[in-house]
Amino acid sequence: MNNPQLNKHGELQHLLTTEGLPVEIVRAILDRAATFVDVSGGLGIKNVPLLQGKSVFNMFFESSTRTRTTFEIAAKRLSADVLNLNIASSSTSKGETLLDTVDNLCAMHADMFVVRHSQSGAAHIIARHVAPEIHVINAGDGRHAHPTQALLDMFTIRHYKKEFHNLRVAIVGDILHSRVARSQISALTSLGVPEVRVIAPKTLLPTMVKNLGVHVYHDMALGLRDVDVVLMLRLQNERMQGAALPSSQEYFKYYGLTEEKLACAKPNAIVMHPGPMNRGIEIESSVADGKHSVILPQVTFGIAVRMAVMSILAGAKA
Amino acid sequence: MNNPQLNKHGELQHLLTTEGLPVEIVRAILDRAATFVDVSGGLGIKNVPLLQGKSVFNMFFESSTRTRTTFEIAAKRLSADVLNLNIASSSTSKGETLLDTVDNLCAMHADMFVVRHSQSGAAHIIARHVAPEIHVINAGDGRHAHPTQALLDMFTIRHYKKEFHNLRVAIVGDILHSRVARSQISALTSLGVPEVRVIAPKTLLPTMVKNLGVHVYHDMALGLRDVDVVLMLRLQNERMQGAALPSSQEYFKYYGLTEEKLACAKPNAIVMHPGPMNRGIEIESSVADGKHSVILPQVTFGIAVRMAVMSILAGAKA
Amino acid sequence: MNNPQLNKHGELQHLLTTEGLPVEIVRAILDRAATFVDVSGGLGIKNVPLLQGKSVFNMFFESSTRTRTTFEIAAKRLSADVLNLNIASSSTSKGETLLDTVDNLCAMHADMFVVRHSQSGAAHIIARHVAPEIHVINAGDGRHAHPTQALLDMFTIRHYKKEFHNLRVAIVGDILHSRVARSQISALTSLGVPEVRVIAPKTLLPTMVKNLGVHVYHDMALGLRDVDVVLMLRLQNERMQGAALPSSQEYFKYYGLTEEKLACAKPNAIVMHPGPMNRGIEIESSVADGKHSVILPQVTFGIAVRMAVMSILAGAKA
Repeated sequence: MNNPQLNKHGELQHLLTTEGLPVEIVRAILDRAATFVDVSGGLGIKNVPLLQGKSVFNMFFESSTRTRTTFEIAAKRLSADVLNLNIASSSTSKGETLLDTVDNLCAMHADMFVVRHSQSGAAHIIARHVAPEIHVINAGDGRHAHPTQALLDMFTIRHYKKEFHNLRVAIVGDILHSRVARSQISALTSLGVPEVRVIAPKTLLPTMVKNLGVHVYHDMALGLRDVDVVLMLRLQNERMQGAALPSSQEYFKYYGLTEEKLACAKPNAIVMHPGPMNRGIEIESSVADGKHSVILPQVTFGIAVRMAVMSILAGAKA
Repeated sequence: MNNPQLNKHGELQHLLTTEGLPVEIVRAILDRAATFVDVSGGLGIKNVPLLQGKSVFNMFFESSTRTRTTFEIAAKRLSADVLNLNIASSSTSKGETLLDTVDNLCAMHADMFVVRHSQSGAAHIIARHVAPEIHVINAGDGRHAHPTQALLDMFTIRHYKKEFHNLRVAIVGDILHSRVARSQISALTSLGVPEVRVIAPKTLLPTMVKNLGVHVYHDMALGLRDVDVVLMLRLQNERMQGAALPSSQEYFKYYGLTEEKLACAKPNAIVMHPGPMNRGIEIESSVADGKHSVILPQVTFGIAVRMAVMSILAGAKA
Repeated sequence: MNNPQLNKHGELQHLLTTEGLPVEIVRAILDRAATFVDVSGGLGIKNVPLLQGKSVFNMFFESSTRTRTTFEIAAKRLSADVLNLNIASSSTSKGETLLDTVDNLCAMHADMFVVRHSQSGAAHIIARHVAPEIHVINAGDGRHAHPTQALLDMFTIRHYKKEFHNLRVAIVGDILHSRVARSQISALTSLGVPEVRVIAPKTLLPTMVKNLGVHVYHDMALGLRDVDVVLMLRLQNERMQGAALPSSQEYFKYYGLTEEKLACAKPNAIVMHPGPMNRGIEIESSVADGKHSVILPQVTFGIAVRMAVMSILAGAKA
């Protein structure tokens, strides 16, 4: 078997991307996550000591307090020890290679690496390098993938919509630069969503976008028509200052999710966003806080999904 | 009841300021703190698992290693999980609003927020926003309040002086910009201290200082005469470079606490300082290290008082 | 007894330097470390709750993710609470003196300080200042000493060579600026290594180098001849840009450890490096990854040695 995410027993060895991830494993992650959600009185998360005595190293070559925090909470809920390494400001700046840094951390007896890196493929390189008893989770690599975000999105969709095979899902915004969109599209497709749409200006779409198996729209009213799920993307500040966009006001006018535009979707459509939100740019405040929004449950489910991934990895045969 | 710090049962729900904090609650905090201090052989602090399974989030929008550390230690002594969030360098810089950041952290199942922010009122805004099962502690907001500092000062005074009703207390230094002074004055008044003095140059006093119910002095010899407690304030670097003060040497000459000036106070007067000290500017080294100084016990008591606040908040009905 | 590292019972009170450290204590540390290494199936490290309820404060006045992480892991393996204080960005920048910072942390009930500071002697000053129940470990002070690095090197040598009395050891590189070299030389001498060599260009040697009791070489082929152990030093970036060296290519040509040069050493020689490595500057990649290299086991043993030091300190009589 040549899938870099699976071990020779076909078990999940690393979580690097939703592309090529067998759908049974995606379902197993969602099912495991569901066992960690306490639905009695709000959405609680349970403590379970499945990673007792294990060390999880948060290797953040790119800083992200939010993502780092969710992994730290997930690991602690599983009773793991967590070490936060802000590697941007550390050895790599001293001329050490990425793999030497990794080898050193392995020699300190890490059991699991959570990797965030600005270069696409960084988590793959690390996964290919480490010993078989060590597990790697990609927490975002360049424009490539952000699989735990996509999985928590799938968990959220399943929580509210129960099934995937009858859904119409639209992803709105900067598809071109988004690792989240890429991971969402492959997860949605894998889980059997029959119609995935992307809605964006031409300048924010990859040239080969149709190869992704999605329907392309440049107009919100058309693209949102009768969808069950709206996945908003964050418009990154650097894009707003670049040549790809006229202005953030203009962007909001055409692609910002307003109540008016959302009225094109199904009456019970849900609205999601990976955060942090730019209110008034990609999403209107009344929508972000409105009855269609499931943006905060996404955050809670994100803890459960990360616990699920970690506990499944820890259970793989070495 | 309209007190934002109390829940509908009249229990402490948030600790935001000493202003308007019922004196029975102040006393309850001091009494609870006393149970955490182990006076056998020095001043030890006990470990008690009162916050087991709870998550305390240190939300520091303004960096302060010292204050953050005391809360972290207090929370760990109570067996809580602690997450340190240096928010200055995080999502708010990505355009996210304060309340979106707070909502996200709530969705991660924080039980308690410890908030330090450069804007007065930030902790109040957060407290008003969160769900009833979440508690907020103000660890310093702008020029407004720093209630745990004031409470540890009260604990220290009570430890050495036993009673409040017979004391003369002087607060010395930059009253104008000090959240500590503001919180001290209301706590001292509330606990029944009959005479609170402030000693400062006119440029470092608020215009409405007399409304605070204090006696104003511009001269140390007069202001310190027969006081039982001297509460020194830190002179912040930015003030020293500003127009409000001639020079730090000049400041020391008139308002620095020297042994000579301290001789005006009662023979058994105690000297306190919230730290970090500027030796040779607001306080002479021989006083800082002298027999009247209780500056280091303040730090130890600060752990106990923060444990007390956290454990009382955790015990409030949701 | 006037040794600042020992208490009045002759026990290890602080670990500040390998200079003047009694050889029985060095051996006790290595023996204790050996009990923490699990040699069954790789080189594991055991968890032992010897520091339960103790607080270890990582006081890093100079940032070093790697060293800080190894101490944090060691402390957690011993069940201690760990507090990371990045003091560079904290109170000392607010004008507080080093000893006031230390006094404050003592008042928060630290049991052990791990100190990294750019000034030689900083850990000594702190050790001399604190109360007898508090222990100080020097994690690197200026150009002076880095004793835990030297001790883990000794552990590694003993692990592979069993004995010290029959060894020829060469230290290669920037002896002048290296606290590691200084600590290694005294540890090797103390353990009875009969021949310690240093190999370096004249510009990277201290003027009084012969007083250290070492043999000085300027030529790798001569200096490495028949050695059992090669201790490489890191060439710091700032040196490469300075006047002391012509260029990093030139340095590699004369002093970089290549397979060819290593062939002068004994056939079973081991190669060590404190990390982070500059591949292609002080060491050729094929040597770093080759069969003589024990660079990664050094890292693992470093955890065990730091656990040993901490647990021995914690066991000293107060």
